[in-house]
Amino acid sequence: MKEKILSLINEGKYLTARSEISKLNVVDAAHLFEEIEPQQILIIFRILPKDFSSETFSHMSTDLKKYVIDSLTDEEAIRIFDDLFFDDAVDLLEEMPANVVKRILRNTNAQTRELINQFLKYPDDSAGSLMTIEYVDLKSEMTVAQAIQYIKDIGIDKRTINTCYVMDSSRVLNGVVSLRRLILSDESELVKDIMETDFISVTTLDDQEDVAARFKKYDYYVMPVVDKENRLVGIITVDDILDVIDQEATEDIQKMAAMQPFETEYLKSSNWALTKHRLPWLLILMLNATFTAGIIQKYESALQSAIILTAFIPMLMDTGGNSGSQSSSLIIRGLALGQIKTKDILKIIAKEFSVGVIAGSILAAVNFLRLYFINQEELSLALTVTLTLFITVVIAKIVGGVLPMFAQKLKLDPAVMASPLITSIVDVVSLFIYFYIATFFLKL
Amino acid sequence: MKEKILSLINEGKYLTARSEISKLNVVDAAHLFEEIEPQQILIIFRILPKDFSSETFSHMSTDLKKYVIDSLTDEEAIRIFDDLFFDDAVDLLEEMPANVVKRILRNTNAQTRELINQFLKYPDDSAGSLMTIEYVDLKSEMTVAQAIQYIKDIGIDKRTINTCYVMDSSRVLNGVVSLRRLILSDESELVKDIMETDFISVTTLDDQEDVAARFKKYDYYVMPVVDKENRLVGIITVDDILDVIDQEATEDIQKMAAMQPFETEYLKSSNWALTKHRLPWLLILMLNATFTAGIIQKYESALQSAIILTAFIPMLMDTGGNSGSQSSSLIIRGLALGQIKTKDILKIIAKEFSVGVIAGSILAAVNFLRLYFINQEELSLALTVTLTLFITVVIAKIVGGVLPMFAQKLKLDPAVMASPLITSIVDVVSLFIYFYIATFFLKL
Repeated sequence: MKEKILSLINEGKYLTARSEISKLNVVDAAHLFEEIEPQQILIIFRILPKDFSSETFSHMSTDLKKYVIDSLTDEEAIRIFDDLFFDDAVDLLEEMPANVVKRILRNTNAQTRELINQFLKYPDDSAGSLMTIEYVDLKSEMTVAQAIQYIKDIGIDKRTINTCYVMDSSRVLNGVVSLRRLILSDESELVKDIMETDFISVTTLDDQEDVAARFKKYDYYVMPVVDKENRLVGIITVDDILDVIDQEATEDIQKMAAMQPFETEYLKSSNWALTKHRLPWLLILMLNATFTAGIIQKYESALQSAIILTAFIPMLMDTGGNSGSQSSSLIIRGLALGQIKTKDILKIIAKEFSVGVIAGSILAAVNFLRLYFINQEELSLALTVTLTLFITVVIAKIVGGVLPMFAQKLKLDPAVMASPLITSIVDVVSLFIYFYIATFFLKL
Repeated sequence: MKEKILSLINEGKYLTARSEISKLNVVDAAHLFEEIEPQQILIIFRILPKDFSSETFSHMSTDLKKYVIDSLTDEEAIRIFDDLFFDDAVDLLEEMPANVVKRILRNTNAQTRELINQFLKYPDDSAGSLMTIEYVDLKSEMTVAQAIQYIKDIGIDKRTINTCYVMDSSRVLNGVVSLRRLILSDESELVKDIMETDFISVTTLDDQEDVAARFKKYDYYVMPVVDKENRLVGIITVDDILDVIDQEATEDIQKMAAMQPFETEYLKSSNWALTKHRLPWLLILMLNATFTAGIIQKYESALQSAIILTAFIPMLMDTGGNSGSQSSSLIIRGLALGQIKTKDILKIIAKEFSVGVIAGSILAAVNFLRLYFINQEELSLALTVTLTLFITVVIAKIVGGVLPMFAQKLKLDPAVMASPLITSIVDVVSLFIYFYIATFFLKL
């Protein structure tokens, strides 16, 4: 299908291409545009049915949107802009270069301009930045028949009509009623008698992660956003929440791999941008390794007389690091999903201690068998390495479990207490234990 | 509010408690039940309005559901079961002990029982396991008025009436029409003239990750599930997709921390279950460290004459591991979200090489300054460590970027090529380089 349309375009059969494209889902049409040659994009875009082209536009990539808006006449650009839902329009302005923004704002009326400026001010990760304004507002004294007629009159331009909002004269949100409820109710009933008053709402400055958590908890598809006086200012739809959930998980994964979080896609980020976000933690963790170097230097003469000890340092450090990372990853994720609370800290210590003892014993046993029987190392050496391994695993598990909990308690981001930091800490601990035990068993 | 209700219950004022609870959102009511004393749960549950108690039940935790179902009479249990949406009912049966399942199935009719058994067979991560059957089915020859009347007649028991499905006599899905479209259309229009035919569907055996990707791509709230003959068998609603997205991210995070993925929440998992999922990779990676031990032992005599080299092994290995993990995390996440494709491999190598050179240079410079000027180590040692560091970072970045791509190419899970495995590989590489350069600079 895609190939067919592309070849129609290349052959200059634009009208046939047009009718084929119009049959596509608008999302697929938008993706198709990414593959059309730049000089042909505008030709095709202009001959598409107007509604279809606006909808397709709203699903294009930022780069393509820039190209299209830049190439259109003012009049055409404004038409597209006006057809967008308000949140998409605000997002577009945030992504466009200043000259394009000016060009568009110049052509909108004062009231819209003011509203846009207000929306542009909401912090990036707030409920305000996710909301749009095309909701259906009902009055509590309306009958069901009146409400449905009202929806028929104004519904076409609304983001959703499936959930309607009942407000008083000062726009305070009193209730929520679904189109489903309206349709299934008697026409003469009053909206106030069928509306739900136990609805869940968020406020403009709520963090998007908390908003997503509410969507998940209450299985909502749309959530009202209110200001401090409980006046309705917008709605958030679940399709935006899908993106928020992905984005929050990505952020956590980035932090857990010792990076500062960033939103730009990998392939669209410059090399310097990619480096900038990775460098700080690499530097900090590298300088932190002064401690491990210090410990080894302190035991230099001991090491000289038992150089074989060196051979097992990487294994001990890696196993310790891996053990700790496993624990911290589970706890960080559990905290992010709200499955673990700070009050659970004692349970977590107990669990991680048990897991550490079980896993540590098995690892130690395997390790001892290998060192003593297969590698035929001396018993004292095999014991030193094995005992260190066991203690390191137990401590790593507890450190990995506890540090994210402390971070949460201190209102820091638990995701930072992940693999790399835990590894650094466990490195120091395991070296200490290693040399301490070695001095005892090997009589250094 | 919660405290007030709990104290009402403790004082035995059940009827007042009942009316307070009925004012709650059912999700909050379900959460409240988790805090009521076991002997009082049933008293409260039984006096709640029937619809309210069924809805509350569907939002309870698995443990509480088990307790409630177990304590109810057969008749009560069946009523609750019948009130559940089909997907929730199937999920309930999957979670309940065998005797409860028997008890419930014994009391359902043969047709339902057959359907339940069919649904229980869908693989855990498939579209089939997510779907439910309470959709509205329309005929293409219906008028809008007839369709709306039909929805009024049957809508009350449907999961959603916001999207309706138009099927022919053999249940083949021909089109989709939204309630919105019906309401906003002329009553005499025919369903077939207003239905969308460019709808997106999934099949029962599609992986839930792919289903979620389609929801995100097309901004759907409900998606039809069809069989091989394109007959409608169920629908998937977006609230279940929110959970899928969380679950898939959790799985990736678990794999990236060298664990086998598991779905049970941390606090609800036994210590042995937690250990079991962590042990295999810990063992593999521990035994893998034989290589690092081997390299060090090979260079033992060289090391003996320059024991100070040992001091920087942890720093080199950690920095290498961290550098590689950063790259692999970004690539794994990019692949999971579909932002990176296997064909991008050359771009990724180029990017990671550049990032490695920039980050490696800065880290090397800082490291040299510290070793030579602050620690006043010998120039040859400072150069050995610094050069190794630079090369290690560059190689780690490339290895971290490339391995997940190879995994994806080989249809393995890229998430396994994460931090721990990359660290193990980079350990070996960095030690080789270290000793190679040391033999040259320090003339070992």
